[in-house]
Amino acid sequence: MPKNRDAARANLENLYRIFTVPEAPDSTLGAIDQAIAADVTGFLQTHIVAIERDLEAIEADFASAVIPEEPTYVSEYTEFVKENLVAHSVHTAAPGFVGHMTSAIPYFMLPLARLMTALNQNLVKVETSKAFTPMERQVLAMLHHLVYRRDPDFYPPWIHNSQHALGAFCSGGTIANVTALWVARNRLFAPSVDFDGIAQEGLFRALQHRGVDGIAVLVSERGHYSFGKAADLLGLGRDNLIKVQTDAHNRIDLRLLREEVRRLQDRNILPLALVGIAGTTETGNVDPLEALADFAAELGCHFHVDAAWGGPTLFSDRFRSLLSGIERADSVTIDAHKQLYVPMGAGMVVFKDPTALSAIEHHANYILRHGSKDLGSHTLEGSRPGMAMLVHAGLSIIGRKGYELLIDMGIERAKTFAAMIRQHPDFELTSEPELNILTYRYCPLKVQQALAAAPAERCAAINVLLDQVCMLLQKHQREAGKTFVSRTRLRIRHDEELTVLRVVLANPLTTNEILASILAEQCEIVQEPEIQALLQQIEEICTGITEK
Amino acid sequence: MPKNRDAARANLENLYRIFTVPEAPDSTLGAIDQAIAADVTGFLQTHIVAIERDLEAIEADFASAVIPEEPTYVSEYTEFVKENLVAHSVHTAAPGFVGHMTSAIPYFMLPLARLMTALNQNLVKVETSKAFTPMERQVLAMLHHLVYRRDPDFYPPWIHNSQHALGAFCSGGTIANVTALWVARNRLFAPSVDFDGIAQEGLFRALQHRGVDGIAVLVSERGHYSFGKAADLLGLGRDNLIKVQTDAHNRIDLRLLREEVRRLQDRNILPLALVGIAGTTETGNVDPLEALADFAAELGCHFHVDAAWGGPTLFSDRFRSLLSGIERADSVTIDAHKQLYVPMGAGMVVFKDPTALSAIEHHANYILRHGSKDLGSHTLEGSRPGMAMLVHAGLSIIGRKGYELLIDMGIERAKTFAAMIRQHPDFELTSEPELNILTYRYCPLKVQQALAAAPAERCAAINVLLDQVCMLLQKHQREAGKTFVSRTRLRIRHDEELTVLRVVLANPLTTNEILASILAEQCEIVQEPEIQALLQQIEEICTGITEK
Repeated sequence: MPKNRDAARANLENLYRIFTVPEAPDSTLGAIDQAIAADVTGFLQTHIVAIERDLEAIEADFASAVIPEEPTYVSEYTEFVKENLVAHSVHTAAPGFVGHMTSAIPYFMLPLARLMTALNQNLVKVETSKAFTPMERQVLAMLHHLVYRRDPDFYPPWIHNSQHALGAFCSGGTIANVTALWVARNRLFAPSVDFDGIAQEGLFRALQHRGVDGIAVLVSERGHYSFGKAADLLGLGRDNLIKVQTDAHNRIDLRLLREEVRRLQDRNILPLALVGIAGTTETGNVDPLEALADFAAELGCHFHVDAAWGGPTLFSDRFRSLLSGIERADSVTIDAHKQLYVPMGAGMVVFKDPTALSAIEHHANYILRHGSKDLGSHTLEGSRPGMAMLVHAGLSIIGRKGYELLIDMGIERAKTFAAMIRQHPDFELTSEPELNILTYRYCPLKVQQALAAAPAERCAAINVLLDQVCMLLQKHQREAGKTFVSRTRLRIRHDEELTVLRVVLANPLTTNEILASILAEQCEIVQEPEIQALLQQIEEICTGITEK
Repeated sequence: MPKNRDAARANLENLYRIFTVPEAPDSTLGAIDQAIAADVTGFLQTHIVAIERDLEAIEADFASAVIPEEPTYVSEYTEFVKENLVAHSVHTAAPGFVGHMTSAIPYFMLPLARLMTALNQNLVKVETSKAFTPMERQVLAMLHHLVYRRDPDFYPPWIHNSQHALGAFCSGGTIANVTALWVARNRLFAPSVDFDGIAQEGLFRALQHRGVDGIAVLVSERGHYSFGKAADLLGLGRDNLIKVQTDAHNRIDLRLLREEVRRLQDRNILPLALVGIAGTTETGNVDPLEALADFAAELGCHFHVDAAWGGPTLFSDRFRSLLSGIERADSVTIDAHKQLYVPMGAGMVVFKDPTALSAIEHHANYILRHGSKDLGSHTLEGSRPGMAMLVHAGLSIIGRKGYELLIDMGIERAKTFAAMIRQHPDFELTSEPELNILTYRYCPLKVQQALAAAPAERCAAINVLLDQVCMLLQKHQREAGKTFVSRTRLRIRHDEELTVLRVVLANPLTTNEILASILAEQCEIVQEPEIQALLQQIEEICTGITEK
């Protein structure tokens, strides 16, 4: 019995220790911590294994569903993490990792992120965030001003207003887009004399009350998949997310958009919102925002712009005009963990009308009381970390001009890479970069010429094979771990959907030399027998064409 | 002209610097970083100002809506952050800060959080997370096992299954609860022969197809405010979130629940889900989960348990049985940033049926492709940070037994504090702690006796004044910055709603001495003239009662 009591006391002491005794600098975790503080690039290069390990092999290290009974030493766990988690992570900050929307992040973000974790504020309410609440409100106002450019004297009545919020800070762009459409939906069916509003009575009663058979959101086929989720979540149904075809520049086709709206109206379905994209995820193009704003005004519907990627283009004197019309949007999504160079987990949506978020306002007895400045009364999420601090830091330290440099560099780099691809006999540019994203594929000049001359069925046969080349190329390159591009499928021309390689150029450490080496590596990879066999088949079809 | 070019080059060099040169250890930010690593408690105590500054005064430091044009030195910005943000943050980890669901967090979380930030993985897809995806899947399986206790051989086919996920990792409990009800809604209106399902066709068509006039969720009046948001967001309408009154122990009244269901059925409204609460936010009580499971089975509806707070009670051999029946829930929410002692931003929902999340499955062309193990195909959110690592670390390092100790300590502490309040002549316990949360109010013994004897109108008059005492007491205590309790309004008895103080006892560093000092401080605060005046008025009413 006393032995058990001793054991219990020892356990308790160990438990207190983890809450009160810092990791020693010479401990395994302390050493990692210092290594990251001193040289994060070096740390990542040293500890992340380049050559890809099979996912199945990695899964074996994370196979048990049982929570360990006994505590483990921090050092022991840290060794496990180093060997099995860090080693097989993805070096998202590497300058040759240009396949997704990740980048190196500024050094100051790391210690500030630790400060944020140490403070562990909860932004849902002032009582657990105090100065963080005004700070987040300022960040939202700054983004609002970036988009809407209202006079400085517009802001004082709104920025710290206990009844309102100029926007919502979110965990990411998906929640931001959902929030925007949620607000749009609730405003369309606002309370009236004989109707308590959709928030209260629900979608079924709202449509009955209005006498319509549905509500729809229209976005181009390049729209982010979060709009599909939003349509499902908000009760519209995915059938009522109308994906309008794009023109040759991956921008929404306005004629087809009008036709779709007409078709909806014929079916007694109300257009809830038009969505314009400022930086399509796959190709980085910008919809004609002015024209969309005009059309939304004509329809009297909500106009949302998804600028999750492209929003920061507004920092650039040179390229800002690409987003003309964004200031007419009712709501705009911008992700901070993309081109504001903040670590993962920071999105925002701002609203032109500073009272718009009232449409989703909510309260509780223990927090979010009426009249409080708690930000949680106007967000989809509840408890939230102080990520806004990192956005505040970026805006303050890098400044408008610093971000402008980053944006300009990325767009320039994309144009350079496009030129390199165009000049290379073995590659075909499949979408011209407007911002800093482009797509291309491996397609030798001879095949390009054959495709131009071939009848549709032959083209289709060739493209099916080129798709396989593309897929294998991307897979081998990823597995080799030197550089990384992503892939997607796009309807490019003649209604053909093609598999293409996708490159995002936002990492300021990516050089032209690295881009050249990506193409060089791809030329090597296609020498693999598996790919050569496909190219052989393609050549046979081509020969048939040229011979005719 | 050359001058401009020089300036541009200098700007560019400075920009590269922030991406490539670490903060020097002797820089302002470097020093903060080291101070936190060496002694986070000391850092917070030194830098957070105890006495509350007016929110309006703080707002003046965050007043500009204009993003600074020019870059700022990191050191300059850090000074600003220290003086204006950190100083006026909330010391949520302080052992005397027992008003909200925050606690000190284990030391190892800090360096691991930095590692997570440095790796900057994106959990939406394997291509940007690799080993983090299996790791998160394991965490979800561990939580699933904690709740459902399936045989170990249940897990291998599911844990790393590319078609399914045992749960969804979320930014917090709100998204988890929304996800659970979203799944429930989509499963209730699944695709059938002549209906493509609610995800596709929307709520309006779904209800028409089923021939019902609405769907409803039932939860006790102690339910978290996120269910109101969910009812709004999912298109049900807040009117269809039925808040059932509780019994004297803050648990859902089963007789009233049956009545509510009958009323819904009379109105041709279908019960979508019953929600049981395992740890009510305001009082920490647990609904009768077995009985709710029975009733849900009888109705054939979804049974969700919101165990955001109380879920980790399952670690405790002694108290686990308080949650009996949770293993029969179709879905369960657990927050890791609450009683798993992980920093802000980590919630989870697990599903009994490992195929349940298919109801909200979605895909895209560039990621989340069919057959991939990308976790993003089964989450409401898109891009997400690697927070699961911190949960994994907690479960591994603290272990089941460590968490058991923490849980047991918290519940014990709450019982001790309840006894202290009961024995104190000036306080009244307004809810008995079942887990580690309790409520009470300042109410001198004489007033308690008068209330017991007084007619209803007199009671009401006294309680209105006691409410004001409570409000002022809480405000003054918060402003003094030594200790902190929160407040809420609860329907306690005779249908009266009272303002009460709320205490959450999850911080292992909170001692009985600190709890005694909280009461002592409150006894001092009531000496304030403003509060004495109210107590004087109360005494006058009481005198009237005793004289009769």
